Amino acid sequence: MIIVLKSGTSEADVADVERRIRAMGYTPHTIHGELRNVIGAIGDDRGKERLRALESLECVESVTPILQPFKLASREVKRASTQVLVGNAVVGGRDIVVMAGPCSVESRWQVLDVAHRVKAAGARVLRGGAFKPRTSPYAFQGLEEEGLKLLAEARRETGLPVITEVMEPDKVDVVAEHSDILQIGARNVQNFSLLRRVGEAGKPVLLKRGMSTSIQEWLLSAEYVLAGGNPNVILCERGIRTFETATRNTLDLSAVALAKRSTHLPVVVDPSHAAGRPDLVLPLSLAAAAAGADGLLVEVHARPEEALSDGAQALRPRELRDLMDRLDPVLGAVGRALWRPEGARRAALL
Amino acid sequence: MIIVLKSGTSEADVADVERRIRAMGYTPHTIHGELRNVIGAIGDDRGKERLRALESLECVESVTPILQPFKLASREVKRASTQVLVGNAVVGGRDIVVMAGPCSVESRWQVLDVAHRVKAAGARVLRGGAFKPRTSPYAFQGLEEEGLKLLAEARRETGLPVITEVMEPDKVDVVAEHSDILQIGARNVQNFSLLRRVGEAGKPVLLKRGMSTSIQEWLLSAEYVLAGGNPNVILCERGIRTFETATRNTLDLSAVALAKRSTHLPVVVDPSHAAGRPDLVLPLSLAAAAAGADGLLVEVHARPEEALSDGAQALRPRELRDLMDRLDPVLGAVGRALWRPEGARRAALL
Amino acid sequence: MIIVLKSGTSEADVADVERRIRAMGYTPHTIHGELRNVIGAIGDDRGKERLRALESLECVESVTPILQPFKLASREVKRASTQVLVGNAVVGGRDIVVMAGPCSVESRWQVLDVAHRVKAAGARVLRGGAFKPRTSPYAFQGLEEEGLKLLAEARRETGLPVITEVMEPDKVDVVAEHSDILQIGARNVQNFSLLRRVGEAGKPVLLKRGMSTSIQEWLLSAEYVLAGGNPNVILCERGIRTFETATRNTLDLSAVALAKRSTHLPVVVDPSHAAGRPDLVLPLSLAAAAAGADGLLVEVHARPEEALSDGAQALRPRELRDLMDRLDPVLGAVGRALWRPEGARRAALL
Amino acid sequence: MIIVLKSGTSEADVADVERRIRAMGYTPHTIHGELRNVIGAIGDDRGKERLRALESLECVESVTPILQPFKLASREVKRASTQVLVGNAVVGGRDIVVMAGPCSVESRWQVLDVAHRVKAAGARVLRGGAFKPRTSPYAFQGLEEEGLKLLAEARRETGLPVITEVMEPDKVDVVAEHSDILQIGARNVQNFSLLRRVGEAGKPVLLKRGMSTSIQEWLLSAEYVLAGGNPNVILCERGIRTFETATRNTLDLSAVALAKRSTHLPVVVDPSHAAGRPDLVLPLSLAAAAAGADGLLVEVHARPEEALSDGAQALRPRELRDLMDRLDPVLGAVGRALWRPEGARRAALL
Repeated sequence: MIIVLKSGTSEADVADVERRIRAMGYTPHTIHGELRNVIGAIGDDRGKERLRALESLECVESVTPILQPFKLASREVKRASTQVLVGNAVVGGRDIVVMAGPCSVESRWQVLDVAHRVKAAGARVLRGGAFKPRTSPYAFQGLEEEGLKLLAEARRETGLPVITEVMEPDKVDVVAEHSDILQIGARNVQNFSLLRRVGEAGKPVLLKRGMSTSIQEWLLSAEYVLAGGNPNVILCERGIRTFETATRNTLDLSAVALAKRSTHLPVVVDPSHAAGRPDLVLPLSLAAAAAGADGLLVEVHARPEEALSDGAQALRPRELRDLMDRLDPVLGAVGRALWRPEGARRAALL
Repeated sequence: MIIVLKSGTSEADVADVERRIRAMGYTPHTIHGELRNVIGAIGDDRGKERLRALESLECVESVTPILQPFKLASREVKRASTQVLVGNAVVGGRDIVVMAGPCSVESRWQVLDVAHRVKAAGARVLRGGAFKPRTSPYAFQGLEEEGLKLLAEARRETGLPVITEVMEPDKVDVVAEHSDILQIGARNVQNFSLLRRVGEAGKPVLLKRGMSTSIQEWLLSAEYVLAGGNPNVILCERGIRTFETATRNTLDLSAVALAKRSTHLPVVVDPSHAAGRPDLVLPLSLAAAAAGADGLLVEVHARPEEALSDGAQALRPRELRDLMDRLDPVLGAVGRALWRPEGARRAALL
Repeated sequence: MIIVLKSGTSEADVADVERRIRAMGYTPHTIHGELRNVIGAIGDDRGKERLRALESLECVESVTPILQPFKLASREVKRASTQVLVGNAVVGGRDIVVMAGPCSVESRWQVLDVAHRVKAAGARVLRGGAFKPRTSPYAFQGLEEEGLKLLAEARRETGLPVITEVMEPDKVDVVAEHSDILQIGARNVQNFSLLRRVGEAGKPVLLKRGMSTSIQEWLLSAEYVLAGGNPNVILCERGIRTFETATRNTLDLSAVALAKRSTHLPVVVDPSHAAGRPDLVLPLSLAAAAAGADGLLVEVHARPEEALSDGAQALRPRELRDLMDRLDPVLGAVGRALWRPEGARRAALL
Repeated sequence: MIIVLKSGTSEADVADVERRIRAMGYTPHTIHGELRNVIGAIGDDRGKERLRALESLECVESVTPILQPFKLASREVKRASTQVLVGNAVVGGRDIVVMAGPCSVESRWQVLDVAHRVKAAGARVLRGGAFKPRTSPYAFQGLEEEGLKLLAEARRETGLPVITEVMEPDKVDVVAEHSDILQIGARNVQNFSLLRRVGEAGKPVLLKRGMSTSIQEWLLSAEYVLAGGNPNVILCERGIRTFETATRNTLDLSAVALAKRSTHLPVVVDPSHAAGRPDLVLPLSLAAAAAGADGLLVEVHARPEEALSDGAQALRPRELRDLMDRLDPVLGAVGRALWRPEGARRAALL
């Protein structure tokens, strides 16, 4: 922390601040500037947050952190990239994994049908919502546990691992029972009770960035899960809220590139929620792949115009197939590939 | 909903869209424009969200809602302002209520001491956090249930009703047992499981606006609580996240004035979290009162420089007293007053 | 500036950075931390911007300024509040000045009529646009020099000083000839050629904050005018652009309170452009007054529904009168008053 | 325009609004809804802005545009993509053009040296600032006309066309004399006097998006240039201002993909100003190429750590060469290539 004192601060005040810093367990180091004195506080970063209270002193102008406050998520602490095993696919390795499926599970027929189609198109994980966080209480809220069972059935039928959202601590067990990745939605990125609870679950967690969550806050939310004992965290950039209304959110690919540098965790991209319209999903998917994303989370619906939620942004299955075809060469250009099961890969190489 | 069709759309396509609108239970009404056709869909608003899926049709350019999607929270539905009874104070009437206290309950001594001081300064509700949503897992997380008991003790000692945050559905009962208002924090404004659960609690709910929650989304979150059967919702504006970093958040007093028009619910303001620094709490409190706020939620700590959380923004008790003194004439100027218990009021009038 | 080095930086690298800091004319002061070394660079702040280039060095993690970069605008440099004389009114003193009038000058009749009406309502400066910055080239662009002459005529008829916008350096002289305050619009807040030019004009300047200009950048734009030799700068907060679309912009009253602390310049508020709707102008005006604003800039049109620009946000003259009536007691409550000419003031006191 | 009336509006009021719409030259078309009446106004879009004034009527709830207000920039009006000839390169065709060079021209040696290096690395246009829009009046403001002459000399020496910024109408001629593309900076995107003036210049214009300019406003600014008679407009996305501070701005690649759909103008990307740090320039450049950008504008400095402006974000010449090497296969993957002079292209094909 850097504590900047107001101009004209007396020596006695400087000494008082230094004393308080020591009392909190840090070592003060004072720089006497031309206009102001500045004190650096040296010591264990994780508790430094408390030093901010010094801003309340009359003589203190500001208290500014200079280090990133996350540890377990940091690449400085763990250099090697984390690889998360999902079914027989790996997220965070050389190859990228496409997760696709409908926004909501609407019926048995709908989810089984679309599961087969996204698998045929090359997706390796099935996404689908059973518990839906909807802005309005009057909107479709999901099939809940019935939806989980349908997802599990689709998994059995297709062999695709399943990712689905969990919205409250009490449901973590039942969601974990029927799925392979626990998704924490953007609205719950700072639902710390939930983060602590999935930190104890034995399943990988996909943590979406919130609509107005800074990269640092997002990584601190990941830190909650890691600190809970669960190392299998996948980050997911899905667009942030800005003044621009032409797209549902503003996809922040700088955040992807930056997160890949500052953390060892895999980072995937959800172009569907970012764009909020299907025609931008292809270019944003290619851009995400070029920027270094480790995977994509794409909404696909067999009949978007009849979807019960977010139909306006879903691809049709054939559009997903086109996307995969277009993605392949871009991945090749950056030294990566679509993840394929071992057999398929061998065949592809022949 | 207004459905705008692309230019050059065929009559067959128009008929197809009209058919789909009817199939969803709405009446289409088509305007033939010079460049484009536009279809209005008439019917029950609450389900109109589904119509957005029509954006997936090739011939549809956009689907735009024209009505506000909340009902129970709307002043069109209920003209009279809702008054929420808290202890013997009323929030949402002529008089305004100041709620004050520390960010966190830190110790028995700290909370009892500050409770007496904020009461002496004129606050009518004691605020204090027992469960703390902290960005970092390494920051002080609150005394939890022990903190609730200390708040309840402070209530018994001072007679002040207590407001404290609840962060997860499972804790609603225990928090309700020890407090008078259940606070939903900014990070949980779209934690719909929690909103549904407090909708069933028999206690008033104070719903903070999220950092990037639009006014409409905020009112839809209130709608979740109202639809759950709890009419006693108090809205709280606490600043939104913008590009400006000189203040912790940007206090949006337009939202207060606007919410007072579009909803019958009381609206209070938290200037402490908005500003993030104590020297702006006074001018923002006066501004909030002038803009029509029904109350204030102010952080007060006896020794901010030693606080375990958010000390940098807390007032000292004497600063709260100054604030109350300055607030009084501004309230008088807009035809309101600080809420005072009956006896005190009579005395003040003599 | 605080230069944070990466962890594991060698002593040779530290010495190299120190050498570079000295070469730019600053004195390095190094703190050896547990994880990282941090160097404070001490010296004349105004050129410190150049130190940021050190971020390009492999061993440097970040370069962070700790002081505000403006000088002439700073209250640390000039403690006494600047008072700007406009006609016989003072902006920045005890009393506040209301400037009112139409968005655009549309015709001789319109501007003379509304000038008399806003004067009767108590406004002390007439606002009106002759050169209009319009988002679309197809929108009404103003009467230009003809409009300036009509404003000058209205000034002669009513005795009200005139404020009007100047959009390009070449027009500064002609606008200054016909008006009393040169307005720099939000879109030109970083049009530095224009700022330099009005710095040489002998007329007061009202500088609107840009839609996404930080408080610091806004004050640096004021610094351009002050450094050009013109001390008569009035700042004007008019709302910033955020994600919220229910209002045209988000009025940032924290910025008003903060600017009043960090600068000696007067700060006025434009509630009309902030809200974009007339029903919020009253509460936001009262809030601005309570927050410490030195004046208001209010759009008034005799027939808003027929206005050629921004009619949707204009007050009618009688609404301005109501506003003034409501403003009076709020100003009294904060120890201020509406500015009145000497005679009127004496009468008011009797 | 869609005019939504308040609930409970009388037939007389509806008739009055219809009459006013007709008086402005539009045809009203009223839909009688369950809760509200809605009127569509049909007619020439370009003047529809005026209809917004109807919001001032007591009975009108809102006035909402449904069509995009730009014409000449629209792909509906001109299907074929505009190709802008710069030297012997084409911006907006199959191949993409990299423009590179220093933020500021600092000296003869610096600009000639870097010009040769960026040419060797494969850049086809030299960028460099002579007039610099600097936030602080105390920062380096550019070499001005001397800088223009140095750029012209670098052009003669290397054969590279030159792009440089023009900041005020009076300088358009002299900047046009010494350069090949007139750059309008982000801060001047709504400097309409300047836009009109470059609309009359006989040189291509590169129009940067403003920090908080919506895509629609950006295209309306382009419309000013097009309407002035200059068809050679290149759009440049350079990041928008959001709450995220880890990067200087937030690069909005959705805007690139969207602009390519809604307009026929070429769109290039400036990853340097977006990121504000050199390590993100490579991934963002690849992402921009994958998203469909027609070119890149990259800051390059031989010694970034000594640059007089924005050194912290500049690439070194060898980093530009790496970037070009990495860009090549990504462009190939999306069916494009780096633009090369005819001879070089033939050689590359052999």
